[in-house]
Amino acid sequence: MQKNDLDHLRDQIQEFAKQRDWDQFHSPKNLSMALSAEVAEIVEHFQWLTEEQSKSLPLNKLDEVETELADTFIYLIRLADKLDIDLLAAAQNKIEVNKEKYPVDKAKGTAKKYTEFDR
Amino acid sequence: MQKNDLDHLRDQIQEFAKQRDWDQFHSPKNLSMALSAEVAEIVEHFQWLTEEQSKSLPLNKLDEVETELADTFIYLIRLADKLDIDLLAAAQNKIEVNKEKYPVDKAKGTAKKYTEFDR
Amino acid sequence: MQKNDLDHLRDQIQEFAKQRDWDQFHSPKNLSMALSAEVAEIVEHFQWLTEEQSKSLPLNKLDEVETELADTFIYLIRLADKLDIDLLAAAQNKIEVNKEKYPVDKAKGTAKKYTEFDR
Amino acid sequence: MQKNDLDHLRDQIQEFAKQRDWDQFHSPKNLSMALSAEVAEIVEHFQWLTEEQSKSLPLNKLDEVETELADTFIYLIRLADKLDIDLLAAAQNKIEVNKEKYPVDKAKGTAKKYTEFDR
Repeated sequence: MQKNDLDHLRDQIQEFAKQRDWDQFHSPKNLSMALSAEVAEIVEHFQWLTEEQSKSLPLNKLDEVETELADTFIYLIRLADKLDIDLLAAAQNKIEVNKEKYPVDKAKGTAKKYTEFDR
Repeated sequence: MQKNDLDHLRDQIQEFAKQRDWDQFHSPKNLSMALSAEVAEIVEHFQWLTEEQSKSLPLNKLDEVETELADTFIYLIRLADKLDIDLLAAAQNKIEVNKEKYPVDKAKGTAKKYTEFDR
Repeated sequence: MQKNDLDHLRDQIQEFAKQRDWDQFHSPKNLSMALSAEVAEIVEHFQWLTEEQSKSLPLNKLDEVETELADTFIYLIRLADKLDIDLLAAAQNKIEVNKEKYPVDKAKGTAKKYTEFDR
Repeated sequence: MQKNDLDHLRDQIQEFAKQRDWDQFHSPKNLSMALSAEVAEIVEHFQWLTEEQSKSLPLNKLDEVETELADTFIYLIRLADKLDIDLLAAAQNKIEVNKEKYPVDKAKGTAKKYTEFDR
């Protein structure tokens, strides 16, 4: 049986942490902090750019952002692993929930939160 | 040819946004903000817990955290898509870089950043 | 008439930005991003520490955290200024609201959110 | 001798926490998490707005943002208190440092980080 790509990454990250004896630091609490610090590095790249500029980053910036996205993804996989959460299933499930919360006829063209829809 | 799971999620998220005419809101700048807001909801669940408590959440809390992880994952996939970044390849590449930056003999048992290692 | 300390800081920050022609970058949206990026640098200092360790930082670390707190404070003052919000009054008002939301007899010794209190 | 406004807020927050026996939760580590979660609620208000829209919020939104700024300020004061950091002095000092790092002739009209200036 072949593992899917996410499971493969998860296993490599597990092995990486195990070899370095880092499980002691990787409580879900700590990993949530590390995750938020990585995401902030993405935000930092975009904070003074216009939306238009954020769509066409110079290549050297794009490389840096790619690295921050990778770090974010790695901590997200690790946090999910420590909580025994299946990321793919959780995302698939949330997409279905979002379809219910944001029906096309109410959500079309508006950035309103579903709690702000007219009944 | 079969798409991998992440590509499949990405396509569903694309379709979801397209049907709702949400591409206009989904600049990388805006998506980085949405991503950071979702991660903060994960952090909020853990902020007053001890590390030990964060390892054994009650089931109702775990469900809520799972939903926040799903939201985070969805925005991460969406942001990567808008930047034309291959998340799986980026993560795989970063793991290799991390092996170089954090050799076992220097990193073992310490949470120091690589910039703080003795030469 | 003497200005209070916060107004004095606000004015210096205004002058600093004006001299550098930075008002063009300082929309509330952008400042909220900069604020969150600074706070993440505080979080990063604490992410692998135990709660106990976070209470007694080595002096060089404490200096770094002080700088991040200063940056956070500066962006908070700047954002409030751009939104015409009086930070001192807002905080004073929120403390009163919190006293209502978290009455001593219900809140004592628990980190529950007020929405989770027994009625 | 009269206390300045910030000291007065700090004392009220201390008293508030003491009455509720909340010092046990208020480690710097935990407070940094709470601070970042509050800032994210500011970010959430702005994430789908254009920069222009963020400059002229409808009054009900402005009220909500004011509350989030107040929460952010309260946690920032609390965190500084727990670390024995003088926020006013730290900010004043950082402004002086920034004047050195961002001389008008190099920083004028650009959002570049000082590390990206031409020498």
